[in-house]
Amino acid sequence: MTIVTGVTDHRRMSVPEIRGLSAGALVTDPQVIEGYRRDQAAIVPAGRPLGVVRAASVEDVSAALAWASGHQVPVVPRGAGTGLSGGANAIDGCLVVSTEKLTAIRVVDAANSCAVAEAGVINADVGRAAAKAGLFYPPDPGSFEISTIGGNLATNAGGMRCVKYGVTRDSVLGLEAVLADGTVLATGSGGARKNVAGYDLTSLLIGSEGTLGIITSATLRLRPLPPRPPVTFAATIPELPQAGHVVAAIGASGVTPSLLEFIDNPTINAIEDYRRMDLDRSAAGLLIGQADGVSADEDVAAMMKCCEEAGAVDVLRSDSAEEAESLLAARRLAAPAVMATGPTIIDDVCVPPGRLTAMLEEVQRVSRDSGLTIAVTAHAGDGNLHPALMLPSLEDDVVARAMEAGERLCRRAVELGGTITGEHGVGALKQPWVSGQLGPAALAAHRAIKAALDPAGILNPGRAF
Amino acid sequence: MTIVTGVTDHRRMSVPEIRGLSAGALVTDPQVIEGYRRDQAAIVPAGRPLGVVRAASVEDVSAALAWASGHQVPVVPRGAGTGLSGGANAIDGCLVVSTEKLTAIRVVDAANSCAVAEAGVINADVGRAAAKAGLFYPPDPGSFEISTIGGNLATNAGGMRCVKYGVTRDSVLGLEAVLADGTVLATGSGGARKNVAGYDLTSLLIGSEGTLGIITSATLRLRPLPPRPPVTFAATIPELPQAGHVVAAIGASGVTPSLLEFIDNPTINAIEDYRRMDLDRSAAGLLIGQADGVSADEDVAAMMKCCEEAGAVDVLRSDSAEEAESLLAARRLAAPAVMATGPTIIDDVCVPPGRLTAMLEEVQRVSRDSGLTIAVTAHAGDGNLHPALMLPSLEDDVVARAMEAGERLCRRAVELGGTITGEHGVGALKQPWVSGQLGPAALAAHRAIKAALDPAGILNPGRAF
Repeated sequence: MTIVTGVTDHRRMSVPEIRGLSAGALVTDPQVIEGYRRDQAAIVPAGRPLGVVRAASVEDVSAALAWASGHQVPVVPRGAGTGLSGGANAIDGCLVVSTEKLTAIRVVDAANSCAVAEAGVINADVGRAAAKAGLFYPPDPGSFEISTIGGNLATNAGGMRCVKYGVTRDSVLGLEAVLADGTVLATGSGGARKNVAGYDLTSLLIGSEGTLGIITSATLRLRPLPPRPPVTFAATIPELPQAGHVVAAIGASGVTPSLLEFIDNPTINAIEDYRRMDLDRSAAGLLIGQADGVSADEDVAAMMKCCEEAGAVDVLRSDSAEEAESLLAARRLAAPAVMATGPTIIDDVCVPPGRLTAMLEEVQRVSRDSGLTIAVTAHAGDGNLHPALMLPSLEDDVVARAMEAGERLCRRAVELGGTITGEHGVGALKQPWVSGQLGPAALAAHRAIKAALDPAGILNPGRAF
Repeated sequence: MTIVTGVTDHRRMSVPEIRGLSAGALVTDPQVIEGYRRDQAAIVPAGRPLGVVRAASVEDVSAALAWASGHQVPVVPRGAGTGLSGGANAIDGCLVVSTEKLTAIRVVDAANSCAVAEAGVINADVGRAAAKAGLFYPPDPGSFEISTIGGNLATNAGGMRCVKYGVTRDSVLGLEAVLADGTVLATGSGGARKNVAGYDLTSLLIGSEGTLGIITSATLRLRPLPPRPPVTFAATIPELPQAGHVVAAIGASGVTPSLLEFIDNPTINAIEDYRRMDLDRSAAGLLIGQADGVSADEDVAAMMKCCEEAGAVDVLRSDSAEEAESLLAARRLAAPAVMATGPTIIDDVCVPPGRLTAMLEEVQRVSRDSGLTIAVTAHAGDGNLHPALMLPSLEDDVVARAMEAGERLCRRAVELGGTITGEHGVGALKQPWVSGQLGPAALAAHRAIKAALDPAGILNPGRAF
């Protein structure tokens, strides 16, 4: 690890001048700062911050932003640092504002099926607090045991349960956020499910990757716990187009799965290399699905029929929680197995669900052309694919080849009516490509809104769009 | 009807100068214009437009807005004019831009469960086109046979099915809209279900009541048709607090109703006066619910049990489509029955669902204090109440009393963690009260966003916030 021996920013701000911060909130120790320089996007460059504010309160966030706006110092907001797009990577001379210490679950309101959680609360802790009240917080990004609600909100995180329950935005009723000038803003309602008083600032802030404000807490909508443990099935897909056919048939069947995941052949092989699961190394892929309602048995039977009719083989269902866990295990191992092979870039395109096969075919073409192995896991029911580009090294020419491959995947996703990012965010990684998706009119609207809410341009500049 | 004999606006614009409009799109005939002066909010004043553009294309909308921005002429966007908040009422000297002729359903894409509908398409026509493809468009405002998608989007309209399927915003994947300067903007995706590339301009425009842009078409998410006709039940509520108890019990049961409506005692009596239904004139209210999934029978049985345990009586379920229709008939008659009594103001507060009884009790207090009969229909499962203030006349002192009563209801809804409008919009009617809900920081953010996207301030000024 490089030891930072001094602030290298040309502005050389005297950071300790920030007024109104809690004692100890501001950290300037270079060794500590080093741990706040990057998220999990290995190939995205990270700068050196002036300092880190570990906010202990909303007031700390407010004081930090008021100071930064006054001094034109860029601010990089940070949750747990589990992002995959470099959106939390430091910028040279920035102030990192971390919400990791805002860990209170202020309210769990069973009568109104909602909770108020501060930004630094771990996603899974919201789930556990909800479960104690007989309730359920659906959004479940892969990082749910380590990522924070604040980070989930900043990127509008998704997960495996989106196919039934929607993305993070669909579980938020209101926000508390600090604007660039330090103003504390409340959006949405205190628990009402429908609200058209004024603009939807809640949705505007969610997914804005810290470029419009720093979210400090959220009123989250909770749902009743599903009436029974989910019923799980798995199906082996011999030929790639059958994956699309199965997903289309399930979509048309009227059944709403609570999970519908796909892993492709390179992922199956990475898993088998990592831990023997007796998966079919020659299959085009494996589909795993669940239903969690009172009609879960009938729903799973209907989905298995869709699989069989589309040519899937080895279509199996769980008869116990243990069997369900074993069917899901392959899906859960996909990320560690792929990442164990060496450096990876995890992409995050999303296409209309009927175009799943077209996108999978493009992945194969790009893999062939680039010479890179690309292993796909997909939230198949949502058309959201995570092609993981497996790099032999982090040498410049390899990274350049990977970025070119990533760009091709993103371009194809947009051609197919989709998006360059379904749930990870644009961050810094995809910033060069987002303008191609948004187009000049939308980009101009983004710039106008950004300038309106952050006239000094301090909040995570160069990220999100 | 007053015949308008000339443009009264002090600017006396020469309207026919608008370049680039389709032949016949601009209407200046005073008698025709008269029909474009107001929506359905009887007590909200309406001004006199300079002219009406009946846009035949997106280009017409663009030409009209570019002209209006250049000449600083206010623009009032208009769908079918079925709004209840005066949001489409003309402003003196404005240009009304009507989307009523944009009636193409450009695409119904069964493979991707979406459709592209222009703003002037009637809500029910989207439903019918979807049904032909085996699909379903859930948002169902009371006006669904006469209101347009554009108006539904402008107010983020709701309806009876929201309790299961969400509001209009929850069924939109992307928009085409014209900004104040005439720029045509595309937001969202072409059918992808998840998208975090850039800001959520889709959600920002939805519910903005024509103050940020004019929506010209939308990519709507369709769902599979429910697998069976809904099963319906009804329950008589002897005492008001039992309504809240039943709704809370259903909410906690894990069942998701596809409809959960309540009508109160004054509504029951208005219905019986209008058409004999043999409802219990002494009851506190009537609850009507449905379920539409494969487990609809079990779901309805569970909800009926909740009713009985909370003290409801005459808990009945339908055994046929005819019986279901007869149970729903009372709910459907509520609006015509109440409106037949004379002038009414339909309010639209929404509170966290566990505070339904508290809000119903406030309605009774306000009714007593104001001397006005207030008849409530409620989307009970969402906590969304429509107290209809029944006015003996439209004399000034009566209207003043009604507005005071309405203000009290709105204030109480906000105190209870709710909102002054759940699905009708702020319009002009509730504009004086919205600042009390939003607070100064949110209001400032609204003004900044408005100025950023509509620097000349032409788009529906004074509405929405």
